[in-house]
Amino acid sequence: MTDVIDMAKKAREASLRLANMRTDDKNKALHEAAREIRENAAALQEANRKDLAAAKEKGLSPAMVDRLTLSDKTLDQICKSLEEVAALADPVGEIVSTWKRPNGLEIGKMRIPLGVIGIIYEARPNVTVDAAALCLKSGNAVLLRGGSEAIHSNRALAILLARACQASGLPEHAVQLIGTTDRAAVLEMLKQEETIDLIIPRGGEGLIRFVVENSRIPVLKHYKGVCHVYVDQGADPEMARRICVNAKVQRPGVCNSMETLLIHEKEAKTLLPEIAAALQKEGVEIRGCPATLTHVPDAKPATEEDWGAEYLELILSVKVVASMEEAMEHIDRYGSLHTESIVTRDEGRAERFLRELQSSTVMVNASTRFSDGFEFGLGAEIGISTSKLHAFGPMGLKELTTTKFIVRGQGQIRE
Amino acid sequence: MTDVIDMAKKAREASLRLANMRTDDKNKALHEAAREIRENAAALQEANRKDLAAAKEKGLSPAMVDRLTLSDKTLDQICKSLEEVAALADPVGEIVSTWKRPNGLEIGKMRIPLGVIGIIYEARPNVTVDAAALCLKSGNAVLLRGGSEAIHSNRALAILLARACQASGLPEHAVQLIGTTDRAAVLEMLKQEETIDLIIPRGGEGLIRFVVENSRIPVLKHYKGVCHVYVDQGADPEMARRICVNAKVQRPGVCNSMETLLIHEKEAKTLLPEIAAALQKEGVEIRGCPATLTHVPDAKPATEEDWGAEYLELILSVKVVASMEEAMEHIDRYGSLHTESIVTRDEGRAERFLRELQSSTVMVNASTRFSDGFEFGLGAEIGISTSKLHAFGPMGLKELTTTKFIVRGQGQIRE
Repeated sequence: MTDVIDMAKKAREASLRLANMRTDDKNKALHEAAREIRENAAALQEANRKDLAAAKEKGLSPAMVDRLTLSDKTLDQICKSLEEVAALADPVGEIVSTWKRPNGLEIGKMRIPLGVIGIIYEARPNVTVDAAALCLKSGNAVLLRGGSEAIHSNRALAILLARACQASGLPEHAVQLIGTTDRAAVLEMLKQEETIDLIIPRGGEGLIRFVVENSRIPVLKHYKGVCHVYVDQGADPEMARRICVNAKVQRPGVCNSMETLLIHEKEAKTLLPEIAAALQKEGVEIRGCPATLTHVPDAKPATEEDWGAEYLELILSVKVVASMEEAMEHIDRYGSLHTESIVTRDEGRAERFLRELQSSTVMVNASTRFSDGFEFGLGAEIGISTSKLHAFGPMGLKELTTTKFIVRGQGQIRE
Repeated sequence: MTDVIDMAKKAREASLRLANMRTDDKNKALHEAAREIRENAAALQEANRKDLAAAKEKGLSPAMVDRLTLSDKTLDQICKSLEEVAALADPVGEIVSTWKRPNGLEIGKMRIPLGVIGIIYEARPNVTVDAAALCLKSGNAVLLRGGSEAIHSNRALAILLARACQASGLPEHAVQLIGTTDRAAVLEMLKQEETIDLIIPRGGEGLIRFVVENSRIPVLKHYKGVCHVYVDQGADPEMARRICVNAKVQRPGVCNSMETLLIHEKEAKTLLPEIAAALQKEGVEIRGCPATLTHVPDAKPATEEDWGAEYLELILSVKVVASMEEAMEHIDRYGSLHTESIVTRDEGRAERFLRELQSSTVMVNASTRFSDGFEFGLGAEIGISTSKLHAFGPMGLKELTTTKFIVRGQGQIRE
């Protein structure tokens, strides 16, 4: 355990230097890391084969094995993403706002890194590089703790990342991987509130709950995405159908896909069967409220559990509502504060939907699938937060920074 | 314990309505609360006398008893502060920024309340009203948990606050006080991460550490303020003297007063004795490094503990440094990320000091005593954060809000 405490202390020291590194040096390290990965592809894949062999022995699902594999294509994507992060604007040093006080003090807010970020994640080894790149670019030291399934791959990648930092003049301990796989190390890491500023867990709900329950350090996370589309009375039928199909079907396994469709009762007779047919044609199973069942005869009845379910597959719960208010109450009750969209032609209701719902992303006439950092133009995404502190919704580089007050005086003292 | 869980659930429900209340209604409740307190002053003071009697029995210090007392003047200040919060701009609904994506999506960020805020505080009963006012104005429901010393006063104040909410159409459970004084209730409160969004502890370091160690909910806090003034080579002697005296002496018992003076060795021979004499004239005890002792003969030697001490009284540690770099290294090592100020005539060093230190407030040529929400023009102050997540430095109404993404489309789907 002294290892983790020691690593966190070294990360803290590195973070003080890293906070004041020039953008060019940080970018150089990112390009250097891409070069190292390309040059050492064979060695990386050798290490990766050990993880794959262990995965097969343990009987991991083909999907898990797929996510674990460092194919030529995966390695290429990892390198490209490093180069993309290098191309992003550096948020550090940005002056967010300035104002002057009656006594002449000039006050401003300047963006600075958070300091040390701990990332706790599961099988995908590409997270090792992606997360490290975003932390470095935003001037943060990073302590990585990957899952045991990818330990050989992660170790091999971390060595290359550390080497790239050193070659570029960045502090030696800017990127560190916790090389052990015991849970005790995670517990110890979560107690280092004096040296680690933020924990970002990436993985299943079980991992995230474990982290939240045991951390003294602030945690940015989302448990799940139960996203809703509400089709309003008088919605454009063609638009409603296209948005519903896209939100559910285009990539059902991700957190911003639609899990529940709410539709106004006036649209239940004609439009709902059309939307349902279009979804069923794509293989979607529909679980509906009693009113839905009368209009979509081959739908299954929805249970109470369905309304809070994050299916992440081709299943959709559907509820007919008497008003937008009822739709919003349903979202308040069963939603996960992720993303909700209204399809409407009524501007007043659109504005109320945008204003009154407390979810991290609210949309009018657009697919919930747009709810991510790249699509919003943040340039990158370290994750999505559904808790309201610090960041709410998709998080990019800026969300890995904070602001300090800078004050310029001419000798002012307080009376 | 079911009480606390139930109160937190009711607060969550209240918060959903409160988030969409009009500014006028929130202001009405604040004015109404001031009216109730003025009208019921006698009853409040009656309740307060019970707390004062218990305090005397327990042998609380005169300073503690003083802070506990609801004098006519204290009540008047409480009411004025309610009216001041009513006069502040409502942060809820503010559009922070907007941009357009190549696909036509219009994206914006809108300020919304955090939801439910838990305040855990010690003896001062005015915190009950001040904290509730700031939470209500920013659209948040609040769960108050005061210290046992002020329980009768707090109960009496909470009844008036709840009555003012009801009379103004705000939800009944917008303001609730946990009426028991057992620590188990606090522990239970700190586990309600599904219903409480933020915990703000206000009190001594012991209380704050207890909260941080036991909370699953994000906590905004500062442990202590070890503020530094660095007097640079070539600083204006008169300005340096005035700033040092003001920063140490004007109100030594608060977190933004200076605890350590760092001075460039070139100024140690002439200026340091002048500054020390001015401080000693005000009753300040000086504890210095060896170099300080040669220039300020009646100073005591500083120990290692002195460099990290928050004295909160007329004691100052003084260190002579060879450069601004050494001063900044000292601040990195011993500081508390609160407030640091440089007195200098060199613009380059001023800029480096502002840019490179990672404290929540960095100043040039101004007294550290300006580091608070009112002096910075935030309009109010709910506290000062020295942890970097969400808010860093003095926190006003805006820091009790978050932003959500609002997206306006014309039927866009993701390819």
